[in-house]
Amino acid sequence: MDPTKTVRVELGERSYDVRVGEGLLDALGETAAAVGDVGRVVIISDSTVTELYRQPVADSLEAAGLDATLIHFPPGEPNKTLVTVGRIFERLFAIQPPIDRSCLIVALGGGVPGDVGGFVAATALRGLRWMQCPTTLLADVDSSVGGKTGVDAPAGKNLIGSFHQPLAVLIDILTLRTLPERELRSGLVECVKHALIRDASLLGFIAENTGPILACDPGVMTELIARNVAIKASVVSTDERESGVRAHLNFGHTIGHGIETFAGYAGITHGEAVALGMVAACQIAAGKGMVDAGVREALESVLDRLGIPIRRRGLDAEGIWRIMQHDKKARGGKVRFILPTALGEVDIFDDVTAEEAKDAIGLLK
Amino acid sequence: MDPTKTVRVELGERSYDVRVGEGLLDALGETAAAVGDVGRVVIISDSTVTELYRQPVADSLEAAGLDATLIHFPPGEPNKTLVTVGRIFERLFAIQPPIDRSCLIVALGGGVPGDVGGFVAATALRGLRWMQCPTTLLADVDSSVGGKTGVDAPAGKNLIGSFHQPLAVLIDILTLRTLPERELRSGLVECVKHALIRDASLLGFIAENTGPILACDPGVMTELIARNVAIKASVVSTDERESGVRAHLNFGHTIGHGIETFAGYAGITHGEAVALGMVAACQIAAGKGMVDAGVREALESVLDRLGIPIRRRGLDAEGIWRIMQHDKKARGGKVRFILPTALGEVDIFDDVTAEEAKDAIGLLK
Repeated sequence: MDPTKTVRVELGERSYDVRVGEGLLDALGETAAAVGDVGRVVIISDSTVTELYRQPVADSLEAAGLDATLIHFPPGEPNKTLVTVGRIFERLFAIQPPIDRSCLIVALGGGVPGDVGGFVAATALRGLRWMQCPTTLLADVDSSVGGKTGVDAPAGKNLIGSFHQPLAVLIDILTLRTLPERELRSGLVECVKHALIRDASLLGFIAENTGPILACDPGVMTELIARNVAIKASVVSTDERESGVRAHLNFGHTIGHGIETFAGYAGITHGEAVALGMVAACQIAAGKGMVDAGVREALESVLDRLGIPIRRRGLDAEGIWRIMQHDKKARGGKVRFILPTALGEVDIFDDVTAEEAKDAIGLLK
Repeated sequence: MDPTKTVRVELGERSYDVRVGEGLLDALGETAAAVGDVGRVVIISDSTVTELYRQPVADSLEAAGLDATLIHFPPGEPNKTLVTVGRIFERLFAIQPPIDRSCLIVALGGGVPGDVGGFVAATALRGLRWMQCPTTLLADVDSSVGGKTGVDAPAGKNLIGSFHQPLAVLIDILTLRTLPERELRSGLVECVKHALIRDASLLGFIAENTGPILACDPGVMTELIARNVAIKASVVSTDERESGVRAHLNFGHTIGHGIETFAGYAGITHGEAVALGMVAACQIAAGKGMVDAGVREALESVLDRLGIPIRRRGLDAEGIWRIMQHDKKARGGKVRFILPTALGEVDIFDDVTAEEAKDAIGLLK
C-alpha cells in the first residue's frame, strides 16, 4: 500500500493536488517534469532549508532531466520583504539563457519561503507556474492551501501580495524531523483549530495520538496532515478570495492577536497566542449559552496533552481589550469574533460585549 | 446625442467597459461611486500628470462624496521600477485609517502610471479593484486594454508584473491636447498597426482624416480611439494570457526592436521604430509573394501623411540582424515575424531567412 495521501484542492481551472507522504522530496523532479513544457526550474528557499535539502532536491530534478537553479535568502520573517523579492528578481533575471514563461518556480521551506517564492512566481513575467514544498507543519496545514503569496510591509504583515495558486504541493513529512519542537507545536495549534471549526472527530484523532504525533510517526503524521489539508481545502474552495467563510480560519485570532500585541510579540509564538485565543472564544460562547463548558474542556485537554500552554501569567484583560478596540478602530470596522456553536462548528459574531471578552481573557491568567 | 463611445472588453467575469469621450475625467467620481462599496480612492499618477489634472479629478471625486488620496512619483520610464512601487506602498499603507479591500485605485496618466498603478492595485492587500484614466494616445489605444500591469527590471522592460484587469477605463480625449506632438505620433503608429493587423477600413479612416487627427478633433479622435480599443479588445478577449493571437500585436516589433537597440534607444521613439519595422515586414511579405507591393505603399502613404518617418539614415541591416539573432538566442527560441497576408490581416511566421530580413531592412535606408 502506498502510504502517500492526495488531497484535491477544488478551484475550477486552478485546482491542484496536495500530496502528503514520506520522502516526497524525492518525487519533486518527476512531479515537475509531469507539468509539461517545463524549461528551467528555479528553487526559491531560505538558507537554512537550503542547507538541509539542496542535495535531495537537486538530485531529484537532475534525475528527471531538468535544469535547476537555486536562489536562497536569509531565513526569518524580517526578510519577508519587497527588498528580498527585488534581490531574488535580480538573480532570476540574470540566469542565462534568460528565463521565459516555461520557467517553473519551486518554493521550498516554511511559511516565509512559500510566501516569497509564490509571490515571485505571481509577478515574474506576469505570472509563472509554481509548486510548493513546505517543510514546517504550519506551512503544511496552513499556507500550502489557498494560494496566498506575498511579503510584509513596514506597516504590517502580508500587506503586499497576490492570490496565485500553485500547480502542485508536495509535503514530505520527513522534513518535520528537523523542525524545532516549539515550531512543531505551533503547527499543531493550527490542526486543533481546524478540528474545532469543522471536524470534531479530528479532535478525537489528535487526542488519541498525541504521543505518535509529537514523535512524528510517519503514518499518523501523514493522516493528520492530509485531514487538515482537506479541511483547509474545503474552506478555501468555498471562498477563494476570502470574502466569507474563510474568516472561520481566524478562529482564536481576534483575542490571539491582541495577546501577541500585548506581549510585544516576545516570548510567545503565534500558535501559542492563537491557542489562548481559542480557549477564550470557547469561554465566550459558553458564557452566552451557545455551547456548554465541554467544548472548552475538550480543547484545553488536547492542547495540554500536546504541551501547548492554556494559561499565561501576566495577561491584562483590560489592556488586551484596548488593543483589540484600537485594531478595530484602525480597520474602520467591528471586532469580529469566530465562536463555536458546537464542537467542530463555528460562526461569525459581532455582538460580543467588552465584559464578555474581558471575562474570558481573565480566565486565561 | 452623447458623443461618448463605449467599448466592452469581454473577459468573462473580468469584463469591463472602456469609455471614450470629451471631458470624461469629470465623470470619474460618478463612475467610481457606481462601483459600489468603495472606501478610500487612491489616485496613482506621475508628477507631470498630477500638475495638469489633480484639480478636475479631485473635484469630480469630491462631488461624488468620495475621499481621495493622491500619490505621485517622478515621471518617465526610468522610474517604472520596484523601488517606485515600494515607495508608493509606504505612502499607501501610511494612510489613516488604514485602507482595506474597499479601497479603489485609480491609475491616472500615460503608460508608466498605468502600469505602475495597476501593479500596485494587483499586489496591495492581495489585489484591490482599480480603474484606469489614460492621458496619452499610446496608453488610450494600447495599455488601457488587456490588464497588463508591472514594472521594469534592470535586466529588461516589463519583467515584473501581473495580469490584473481594471473595473473600468475612462479615456478623456481632452487630455490629448496637452500631449507633445511626437508622443501623439507615437500613439498613431499603434493605430496604424491595429488597422494593418485587423481592419483595412480603419487605415482608410486614418488616411482620410490625418488633418483632424493631428489637430485632435474631438469627434474624429473619439471615433479613432474607440475603433482601436475595439480591435485591441477583440484580440485580448481571444487570448487574455498572451499564448496565441495576442502575438499579432507585435506586428512591426521584431525588426522595430532591433532598430531601437541598434540606435541605443536614442533619437528614435518606440513608435518610430515600430513604424519602420512594419514597413520592413510588409516588404518581406511582398518579397515572399504573399501580398503585393500595394500593402506597403498604403502603409507608407498613411505614415507619411501623419508625419511619421518611413526611412531612416544610417541603419545597418547586418548589425540589426545580428541584434535580432542575439535576442533570439537569448530567448532560446526562433525569430518570429508577424507578416501581412492581406491588407488588414496578419499571421505568425518563423521561416523568414536572413537574406529576406536584411533586404527588407536595407530598404529602410
